[in-house]
Amino acid sequence: MKTPSSLEFLSEALRRLPGVGPKSAQRMAYHLMQHDRDGAAMLGRALNQAVERVHHCERCNTFTENPVCETCLDPDRDLSLLCVVETPADQLMIEQTLTYKGLYFVLMGHLSPLDGIGPKDIHLEKLIARATDGVVKEVILATNFTNEGEATAHYISETLKARGLKVSRLARGVPVGGELEYVDAGTIARAMLDRRAT
Amino acid sequence: MKTPSSLEFLSEALRRLPGVGPKSAQRMAYHLMQHDRDGAAMLGRALNQAVERVHHCERCNTFTENPVCETCLDPDRDLSLLCVVETPADQLMIEQTLTYKGLYFVLMGHLSPLDGIGPKDIHLEKLIARATDGVVKEVILATNFTNEGEATAHYISETLKARGLKVSRLARGVPVGGELEYVDAGTIARAMLDRRAT
Ligand SMILES: [Zn+2]
Ligand SMILES: [Zn+2]
Repeated sequence: MKTPSSLEFLSEALRRLPGVGPKSAQRMAYHLMQHDRDGAAMLGRALNQAVERVHHCERCNTFTENPVCETCLDPDRDLSLLCVVETPADQLMIEQTLTYKGLYFVLMGHLSPLDGIGPKDIHLEKLIARATDGVVKEVILATNFTNEGEATAHYISETLKARGLKVSRLARGVPVGGELEYVDAGTIARAMLDRRAT
Repeated sequence: MKTPSSLEFLSEALRRLPGVGPKSAQRMAYHLMQHDRDGAAMLGRALNQAVERVHHCERCNTFTENPVCETCLDPDRDLSLLCVVETPADQLMIEQTLTYKGLYFVLMGHLSPLDGIGPKDIHLEKLIARATDGVVKEVILATNFTNEGEATAHYISETLKARGLKVSRLARGVPVGGELEYVDAGTIARAMLDRRAT
């Protein structure tokens, strides 16, 4: 008795999703084939489309379907402020506080030497080029207040201060060990106002 | 600030997977776009291929890429025995006991009136046609020993006995409440030998 190879291939491919082990991959594959072929076809299309169309913004590094994202092209932004975040979700949280009108740089991660994630992986060269464009006056570090986020903030701070930039960090209104994505907007707003030079 | 629509579409599509909520769908989408575009492309291909190629066996209802599956075409099988299981994984468990040389019918589920899963959803008409081909002498019910599996076995048993067929059930060596997929092969082998008429 052999599992059809297309079904095996599907189970294998589903394991590429974070947090999906062999058992749940098989369950997902069977579920799609048995109960939701439309969903399977839709997910297939969505994946192909995303791989084809989604790229990184030339300026802020976030995900976009255009060369430069909408935020970076927004004429109402304060070009002198650059806020550095780990992920697009973190940027969204800060936007929702309505306390910040500058621009962003999205690292798409944080430094984590033990996992082999170094400066190159968080696009540090791109950030340096962006921050030293002569227009940015202050870089606000809004990485998470986890160990990795703090270490990342420290590393970026040293790198940018060495190039003569003013660098600040969100105030510790954000709970220590907390991840921005899960913090209420009010706390983040206060932390933004209380940001301190580093 | 807007999430690229291809990325939103991908998050939405990932929610069609069982057990994936909005938060983990977003995390999966970001992970694929940021760290594993090859994986995303591979999963897209796997889904399209599976939707296109995987069908139900004309005889036993399991997943196959051919009109009739390999097991049903196996010339060394005892054509007079038909074992009814809920899923291909259950069939695989029984195969691994090496105690059974008959054929199978895979319901692809179990009766669950509260969830709106009725006789049609477990392909009962197809099972009746298969079991009454004049060659099958005994139908062995190997649905799970859960409430739904027991109710499914009872319903099928009544239906097939009304048509003059001999129907048996795996012995209760399988722990009550247990799911075949998670039971050791020895227990299933004993239950197969001890099967009783119903
Ligand atoms: Zn941008
Ligand atoms: Zn078959």
